[in-house]
Amino acid sequence: MNIVHVHVQVKPEFVEAFKQATIENASNSVKEAGVARFDVIQQADDPTRFILVEVYRSAEAVAAHKETAHYAKWRDTAVDMMAEPRQRIQYANIFPEDAGW
Amino acid sequence: MNIVHVHVQVKPEFVEAFKQATIENASNSVKEAGVARFDVIQQADDPTRFILVEVYRSAEAVAAHKETAHYAKWRDTAVDMMAEPRQRIQYANIFPEDAGW
Repeated sequence: MNIVHVHVQVKPEFVEAFKQATIENASNSVKEAGVARFDVIQQADDPTRFILVEVYRSAEAVAAHKETAHYAKWRDTAVDMMAEPRQRIQYANIFPEDAGW
Repeated sequence: MNIVHVHVQVKPEFVEAFKQATIENASNSVKEAGVARFDVIQQADDPTRFILVEVYRSAEAVAAHKETAHYAKWRDTAVDMMAEPRQRIQYANIFPEDAGW
């Protein structure tokens, strides 16, 4: 699996708007054939910090996601809500194996 | 959901041993009633860095996990493999809602 954690820190006044925009993006993203999971989580001790936990079945699926209308809308909407540029870190799955996602 | 990301950096010579010990722990942890997911991922550009992505159904489930024999074995085995103390960050789920885990 191709796993991407997108770390986002938003400006405090945009926390709720960011949640709504990101829920909309995630709801559409999980319908993509190559997306196994698209979780959105909020840090307990700092509610301005989020991670988008994106789990793709292939590198092609990562590229396909970036071509979608819902990604483009999220990217263009969310950029001005961020306190700093988002950070993207890539991972491989160790457990479970591919069938477990 | 109570979500915990445990960030671990291991000494390079322990990467494979850490993987095996952590797969064993994860395999047992996912059988716990209060554990929804227990993923183990390895950073693509630095294979000495791992995250344990632990998703619990309640705070009680977090506490129950720490009482298990497999957790104790992992904790005592893995500690000497680490390059620095592990870091634990807690999150809440924004998407999906609880039923989606």
